[in-house]
Amino acid sequence: MTDTVDFPPTKKTKVKRLPYRGHYDRATVHAILDAGVIAHVGYVIDGHPYVTPTSFWRHEDRVYWHGSSASRMLETIEGGSPVCLTVSHLDGFVMARSGFHHSVNYRAVMAFGMAHKVTDEAEKLQSLKDFSDRLFPGRWEMLRPVNKQELKATMVLKMDLKECSAKVRTGPPVDDDEDYALPIWAGVLPVKMVTGEPVDDPRNLPGVKRPDHLNPKIW
Amino acid sequence: MTDTVDFPPTKKTKVKRLPYRGHYDRATVHAILDAGVIAHVGYVIDGHPYVTPTSFWRHEDRVYWHGSSASRMLETIEGGSPVCLTVSHLDGFVMARSGFHHSVNYRAVMAFGMAHKVTDEAEKLQSLKDFSDRLFPGRWEMLRPVNKQELKATMVLKMDLKECSAKVRTGPPVDDDEDYALPIWAGVLPVKMVTGEPVDDPRNLPGVKRPDHLNPKIW
Repeated sequence: MTDTVDFPPTKKTKVKRLPYRGHYDRATVHAILDAGVIAHVGYVIDGHPYVTPTSFWRHEDRVYWHGSSASRMLETIEGGSPVCLTVSHLDGFVMARSGFHHSVNYRAVMAFGMAHKVTDEAEKLQSLKDFSDRLFPGRWEMLRPVNKQELKATMVLKMDLKECSAKVRTGPPVDDDEDYALPIWAGVLPVKMVTGEPVDDPRNLPGVKRPDHLNPKIW
Repeated sequence: MTDTVDFPPTKKTKVKRLPYRGHYDRATVHAILDAGVIAHVGYVIDGHPYVTPTSFWRHEDRVYWHGSSASRMLETIEGGSPVCLTVSHLDGFVMARSGFHHSVNYRAVMAFGMAHKVTDEAEKLQSLKDFSDRLFPGRWEMLRPVNKQELKATMVLKMDLKECSAKVRTGPPVDDDEDYALPIWAGVLPVKMVTGEPVDDPRNLPGVKRPDHLNPKIW
């Protein structure tokens, strides 16, 4: 994390509470996005907020997500509803000597903007390949290729990373000075997302081997 | 999961895409909420959506979250802005024989409503204890007690679970019939959130023991 400002803070993105947790540099924002699988996408219908979890990916200074061409979420957003896309990671429980100073370690990005449909077929196909490649490199080439109808049934949205910021907490608890004298265990209980042992589809053909891209990974 | 309807579906909560993934029973909704630590809270300021990740808890048919009395998010919501609180779990990558049929296994709840500030001091204190107890039973009693100023500096919001639904995907990939003949590995790569080895605060007093409530856990 650096103090570089690649994404100038705005009324929406400036971290007001605990401003030292805010970061506006590309490296921090990209790293938090790339460590995530699911984004929570916020949008507004008739003045009411909706938050839909969805898988997403990043390419350069853009985030992408996708779904059925019939999806209410995608239709609303593609129709011009502003978006807040949030990606968060819970990294640990911060356990202090008082309830008040308990906290969590986390990394989060909030990105605001308008999203647009990817209309060019080649660009859409490439973006779906980017999505696959970033999670499971090499898998795309092993698959039965995407056909025209599937491409048509899939909507891909893209949004420029312009108005965005990161917020990060790390490290041990910060207690009131006098509480450090108390014989209470304090510390951090780390949290991680991990992948487990792959489960073979019961309908796999005999002799089909698990590919290398399934190797267990810590996110 | 059952087909019981405890939370009658509305325009907002009825699962339209893939309706068989929708659930409206209390047991499913509660279980998904209780397995989560972080909620993504959506709200609207000047017509624009905001999605803030925050820790939350449930008591009976209510969800709670908290923060600084100076928080913009809490102030906006407490002032009467409608809320969408979403809790999601990524359970696995569903890897099919075509890109199109790749998916994720997940559990998610979306809850809509208006949130209200907990104003009664005893109720506020009890709700903060509920929050602590649900994550680390027994810890609350070990801590330096909450004082008046801390209680005043903390805002707790509550929202009734009335307009809510769950959406769940489980199981193996579902491929096109003819693709099952292809020699491509398919299956599920499970994902879990796990806690790791606790990290002692460097300022713990000598001889302070780690309490039992830190034992590693799979969420």
